[in-house]
Amino acid sequence: MPVDRQDNSRDRQQIMLRAIGRVISPDAVEPKEIEIAPGFANGLDGVEEHEHLWILYWMHRLADADRRMLQAHARGDTTQPERGVFALHSPMRPNPIGMTRVRLVNREGNRLLVEGLDALEGSPVLDIKSG
Amino acid sequence: MPVDRQDNSRDRQQIMLRAIGRVISPDAVEPKEIEIAPGFANGLDGVEEHEHLWILYWMHRLADADRRMLQAHARGDTTQPERGVFALHSPMRPNPIGMTRVRLVNREGNRLLVEGLDALEGSPVLDIKSG
Repeated sequence: MPVDRQDNSRDRQQIMLRAIGRVISPDAVEPKEIEIAPGFANGLDGVEEHEHLWILYWMHRLADADRRMLQAHARGDTTQPERGVFALHSPMRPNPIGMTRVRLVNREGNRLLVEGLDALEGSPVLDIKSG
Repeated sequence: MPVDRQDNSRDRQQIMLRAIGRVISPDAVEPKEIEIAPGFANGLDGVEEHEHLWILYWMHRLADADRRMLQAHARGDTTQPERGVFALHSPMRPNPIGMTRVRLVNREGNRLLVEGLDALEGSPVLDIKSG
């Protein structure tokens, strides 16, 4: 197998995402409210038929320096050996996408009330999937 | 609650991702190989301790027009009513991030062999999480 299959120029390609909405509840509140931007609200049709949803969001408070970290301690516990960030669930990672399965409590128009979302206030929501 | 909490300018904010690697196996092959770019390979340390991983990838063959679709038929079945894309698992969605839980078969350096990945050849890999 050729060693040089790696196409570095393509791997450096940047991918652009747009927030479809935002987490509007303060950090300690449970359940949390997500507000979907009006331009994306039609994408919610039928969402209320699901008891559980996956929420993908952007960990917007992570510093750029943390996106360059490739090793971290599991649960921040410095008595544990460091591991690669792809072997962990640590928020530090090159593309800090949070992914949480939540219970849908209520939908009102472009707002979803969900239980179990670990996102901070203001987190841009990237995607919602059934599941 | 003020009607005007929506901060449209922030919702239009663009978020930049970089591929950390790529799916290098042809579409029909199973298990599939993922090649992590050399600059991110240290992030894999300890990954072999997990039997299952979540792979987040970019559905790079989706047309831009499909990113503007907010409604689709479940499993493409036109006898079914349309639903919002956020109520579905359809690849059509504003931010086409695929998310699959795979079984890790083998790791060799910066290459992972995984079972159950539904990504097409060349898909940019965005993140890997334990799970």
